[in-house]
Amino acid sequence: MKAVQLGAYNAKPELVEVPDPVIDGPMDVIVRVGGAGVCRTDLHIIEGQWEQKSGVELPYTIGHENAGWVEAVGSAVTNIAPGDPVILHPLATCGLCAACRAGDDVHCTESKFPGIDTNGGYAEYLKTTARSVVKLDKSLAPADVAALADAGLTAYHAVAKAARILRPGQHAVIIGAGGLGHIGIQVLLALSAAEMIVVDRSPEALELAKDLGAHHIVLAEGGQVDAVLALTGGNGAEVVLDFVGEGGAIEDGIAMLRRAGSYFVIGYGGRLEVPTIDVISTEINFIGNLVGTYNDLVELMALAAQGKVTLHTTTYPLSEFSTALVDLEQGRVRGRAILIP
Amino acid sequence: MKAVQLGAYNAKPELVEVPDPVIDGPMDVIVRVGGAGVCRTDLHIIEGQWEQKSGVELPYTIGHENAGWVEAVGSAVTNIAPGDPVILHPLATCGLCAACRAGDDVHCTESKFPGIDTNGGYAEYLKTTARSVVKLDKSLAPADVAALADAGLTAYHAVAKAARILRPGQHAVIIGAGGLGHIGIQVLLALSAAEMIVVDRSPEALELAKDLGAHHIVLAEGGQVDAVLALTGGNGAEVVLDFVGEGGAIEDGIAMLRRAGSYFVIGYGGRLEVPTIDVISTEINFIGNLVGTYNDLVELMALAAQGKVTLHTTTYPLSEFSTALVDLEQGRVRGRAILIP
Amino acid sequence: MKAVQLGAYNAKPELVEVPDPVIDGPMDVIVRVGGAGVCRTDLHIIEGQWEQKSGVELPYTIGHENAGWVEAVGSAVTNIAPGDPVILHPLATCGLCAACRAGDDVHCTESKFPGIDTNGGYAEYLKTTARSVVKLDKSLAPADVAALADAGLTAYHAVAKAARILRPGQHAVIIGAGGLGHIGIQVLLALSAAEMIVVDRSPEALELAKDLGAHHIVLAEGGQVDAVLALTGGNGAEVVLDFVGEGGAIEDGIAMLRRAGSYFVIGYGGRLEVPTIDVISTEINFIGNLVGTYNDLVELMALAAQGKVTLHTTTYPLSEFSTALVDLEQGRVRGRAILIP
Amino acid sequence: MKAVQLGAYNAKPELVEVPDPVIDGPMDVIVRVGGAGVCRTDLHIIEGQWEQKSGVELPYTIGHENAGWVEAVGSAVTNIAPGDPVILHPLATCGLCAACRAGDDVHCTESKFPGIDTNGGYAEYLKTTARSVVKLDKSLAPADVAALADAGLTAYHAVAKAARILRPGQHAVIIGAGGLGHIGIQVLLALSAAEMIVVDRSPEALELAKDLGAHHIVLAEGGQVDAVLALTGGNGAEVVLDFVGEGGAIEDGIAMLRRAGSYFVIGYGGRLEVPTIDVISTEINFIGNLVGTYNDLVELMALAAQGKVTLHTTTYPLSEFSTALVDLEQGRVRGRAILIP
Repeated sequence: MKAVQLGAYNAKPELVEVPDPVIDGPMDVIVRVGGAGVCRTDLHIIEGQWEQKSGVELPYTIGHENAGWVEAVGSAVTNIAPGDPVILHPLATCGLCAACRAGDDVHCTESKFPGIDTNGGYAEYLKTTARSVVKLDKSLAPADVAALADAGLTAYHAVAKAARILRPGQHAVIIGAGGLGHIGIQVLLALSAAEMIVVDRSPEALELAKDLGAHHIVLAEGGQVDAVLALTGGNGAEVVLDFVGEGGAIEDGIAMLRRAGSYFVIGYGGRLEVPTIDVISTEINFIGNLVGTYNDLVELMALAAQGKVTLHTTTYPLSEFSTALVDLEQGRVRGRAILIP
Repeated sequence: MKAVQLGAYNAKPELVEVPDPVIDGPMDVIVRVGGAGVCRTDLHIIEGQWEQKSGVELPYTIGHENAGWVEAVGSAVTNIAPGDPVILHPLATCGLCAACRAGDDVHCTESKFPGIDTNGGYAEYLKTTARSVVKLDKSLAPADVAALADAGLTAYHAVAKAARILRPGQHAVIIGAGGLGHIGIQVLLALSAAEMIVVDRSPEALELAKDLGAHHIVLAEGGQVDAVLALTGGNGAEVVLDFVGEGGAIEDGIAMLRRAGSYFVIGYGGRLEVPTIDVISTEINFIGNLVGTYNDLVELMALAAQGKVTLHTTTYPLSEFSTALVDLEQGRVRGRAILIP
Repeated sequence: MKAVQLGAYNAKPELVEVPDPVIDGPMDVIVRVGGAGVCRTDLHIIEGQWEQKSGVELPYTIGHENAGWVEAVGSAVTNIAPGDPVILHPLATCGLCAACRAGDDVHCTESKFPGIDTNGGYAEYLKTTARSVVKLDKSLAPADVAALADAGLTAYHAVAKAARILRPGQHAVIIGAGGLGHIGIQVLLALSAAEMIVVDRSPEALELAKDLGAHHIVLAEGGQVDAVLALTGGNGAEVVLDFVGEGGAIEDGIAMLRRAGSYFVIGYGGRLEVPTIDVISTEINFIGNLVGTYNDLVELMALAAQGKVTLHTTTYPLSEFSTALVDLEQGRVRGRAILIP
Repeated sequence: MKAVQLGAYNAKPELVEVPDPVIDGPMDVIVRVGGAGVCRTDLHIIEGQWEQKSGVELPYTIGHENAGWVEAVGSAVTNIAPGDPVILHPLATCGLCAACRAGDDVHCTESKFPGIDTNGGYAEYLKTTARSVVKLDKSLAPADVAALADAGLTAYHAVAKAARILRPGQHAVIIGAGGLGHIGIQVLLALSAAEMIVVDRSPEALELAKDLGAHHIVLAEGGQVDAVLALTGGNGAEVVLDFVGEGGAIEDGIAMLRRAGSYFVIGYGGRLEVPTIDVISTEINFIGNLVGTYNDLVELMALAAQGKVTLHTTTYPLSEFSTALVDLEQGRVRGRAILIP
């Protein structure tokens, strides 16, 4: 089959012919790729930023946001059958460790991460296991949802946690209405009746936020903290969802938080720096967020099937992968770039 | 002032002149009534069904779904001021017992219930306490929301509890799309992304449910259990909200419930009768629901201000209270009847 | 190997020679049995009460409360190794269905139940899967904990759920201090600071309850409801844990429940019969309880290793299985009977 | 009556004669002080550190950890009566704001804080309101529990939150076994079956921790992080309760935390400084903790009445207040100093 493989760090990946994957374990699943998301992380992998962390042996196939159709299954697979349209949870988990047992499979102690530490989805076929595949509703095309597998799932996970503590009439601030943030806006509208304030430095991003249903938008050009306080009766918001995590976003976000409020850390890059006296005197919380669980992905696909979460995509044939990567690097992709084998 | 008082059971209430209420405690609040809901319970009170239970001394003023404007406040009242539009929580609670302290004021051990065991809102003015008044958003007119104070609050309370355990893609059955049920439908849509199946015996009620946004409607004419099982992949629903509670509704509802599901008892009249072996072998739960808390009412008013919960009302001048009661008894009221002093 | 097999219903099981189980799947685990609990359900199986329900093909080996040492493992098993002492969760679950994914594996849609619908533990060896084995702390001997695998796990599951809603100073009533109940008493003491009232018809059972640490004991000879009300300031208990589920226990238990309280159904046999008006006017809940999850069993073993849950046992060699069954039937077993191969 | 008043900052407080407090509101309560805790905060107040923050007008009576007997009550007080032994919640709250309504009265927007911003308990009598008094079990003497009113309540609040997420066999680290920490140890033992590891720089504090029931003690002299990792199978603890909040405690505590674990900030002084990449890649949480609610204090008194939480105290007559303050400053008090009027 054809696959885009990375042969050396800081070199261009190449479209090469590799052997088709084969079923050799009872839980194996081979998926014919219908769409593979092109993500900024792929650029970082090529540059070698993940070399130490993943320890993957080169060459290998990149691509960690994948959806398609089941091609073949191992002897013990009962949850799906060849022909089923599926999206792949980013992790292939063990099902045996305490985290998997508790439904918190993101913290599986034995997981593999296709596209990061083993072969991924920039290819015609991808091998994974029965524990990773979520069957799609017939209304959803794999190429349309592939990019929800990782970026969208992270946004869903954080927002769904926040929605469980938000009550109608309370306030939630979303900092950053970009790739993850604009999924977060849609999820929050679907799961809660809180009043949503979206803060961003880009007027275009705010325009999109407004179109998606944000109740208030605030341009971050200096007065954003005061604007949020004004919109919340001077009290701040019960929840801040920070999709940026660097620049002044963290300091702003903390200043926008109400007493006893919760700050959801999603974006990263900067540092959380706060005197403990401030943490205890206002009794605020900082909540970490990694990607979502398998069940989170099932729920996100339910929202997608209901039309409550949609994604703008630009498709490229697999053979044009290089153009897609360059377009992404140069900021020319509208929405998310998707490779179609 | 003018007030509709009940002088004897099984006799017609009369519009009489009574002294205006006066502030004599520091937490007292006098409200100029803007709208008083006319409820089936009022008919039951007149017939004497509540005589033993309430122990109220006749004559007294009925009316337990009230909204209006603050007219005067006691010396210690800090949360509202004269002129504020307000809706009244049905109970005047103590703020001192363990239930009030825990935010569960419905179970206050010292509460009064205006319109039931003390003077209510079929009048120009009503006396209550600062703990009962919820300030209204300026977009809401007292007469439009008065009927949410009791019936709507009960629906909100139950559905909000259910929404906390429902995930996108799971199923919720609403049995009964009448007075409370049609509020419940609106609340469930606002608070969750579960798939909603509404079951009723009336095609008109189902038509309204569909208009409000129910995903599936099922006419209860014999095959309703099978229809729900078919809509849930044969598994039944994670949540059943029973707004009927009598007739065959309970047996039907239990048969529609999924393993580990929860059955919310809201309507009443019939009996819950189920072998304990069925309760344990499927591990199902039965969840009781009374009226909502003060904070529930605050949240319901937030939904009303967002336009997510609306109510059809037919208004009558206070002097036409008798016509309103007769219309209600004879099924001629469209939506809820509201008295306007 | 030697195994006790049931060849026909209503006939005596017999100790026979059968082939040793062999590993033929990658997740298979063969356990050398160290102790197999003899349970009243075994008597019911022999009498044919489970014939329809289990659909098992005769002959087969009974015994569903098992612990021992790992003898051999399949190629994909990573969580245990030969020689490890283990207790077996009663169900062999799939790890793929929504329930398993959510940590609620008791509701697995593809589970097998060794000793009920496939070969069990009245034998020298037992075949199960990696998803069923819980590694034991070195302080615990398999024969000492085997009977916690099913009966103890059920008690743990229900009490742990109740403990999560109980606060110090609140009251919990335990109805029935027998096999499951006396485990429940120990678990409740380990997990909560609620005041515990134990109700039973047997003075001996109450004596044991007192020794285990129950704060109050009440002999059920007519005045038990009044006694519980007197111990709870007339209010009733926040939680009732009913390990009996028949006779007058259910009616008593409901009468002992406080407003907004929760009734945990664990024992069974009788019927839950209650007017819906009583459910809503006091806003009480009925919570079903099946056996615990795999993680519940891990937690129960932690309590056992800490010495907080202990079990009286009487051991019999496997060859004396028939004596054990007769002793159980005739009420001559002190604590739980355990077969030692 | 006699009262210890602060007349000027940085001057010695003096025992003076002041008018007895009088009931002038319907919810007022006058308490005859039975014991007033002498706290490090009192030293800070005298030094003027709270001048800006409290804005209190001098002279006034200090003392914010108070218990005694009800002397007189206002006309609307129903929850207690003269003669009742009581402990005082540190805040006098409004009962009307959203926080009070939700049971989260610590965040009351209208609260007063006797001993900080109004007259406190270094006196024969103290005036408060009905919302602040918790009736004591007859087994508890006011002077024995007074110091639980603030310091103990803070420890209880944080530990009770942590106990709700801890399961048997999981690990909790307590950093700091001093004044608050040694209460925290007792509370954690009463509410959970988690394995407890106590870390402190003082061998004496660790000795006390061990006597109180800590499962493991670790001397903080350099190798404390490695020691905790060794005790937790290399994974770290699900919960860290930090009663220190400065020095190296925070960095240590984060390094001791397991993936998806929660860090409870209780002590303060230092800064929380952590890269957001570390927060999201391990999905950890930081949970702020202020003093407990009224209901928390009720629960703590239940533990005290059960003998599960005890406090070492050294008593001084009110007239010896100056000696108590000096002893505290010079580290000569064993346990907590209590003034007895």
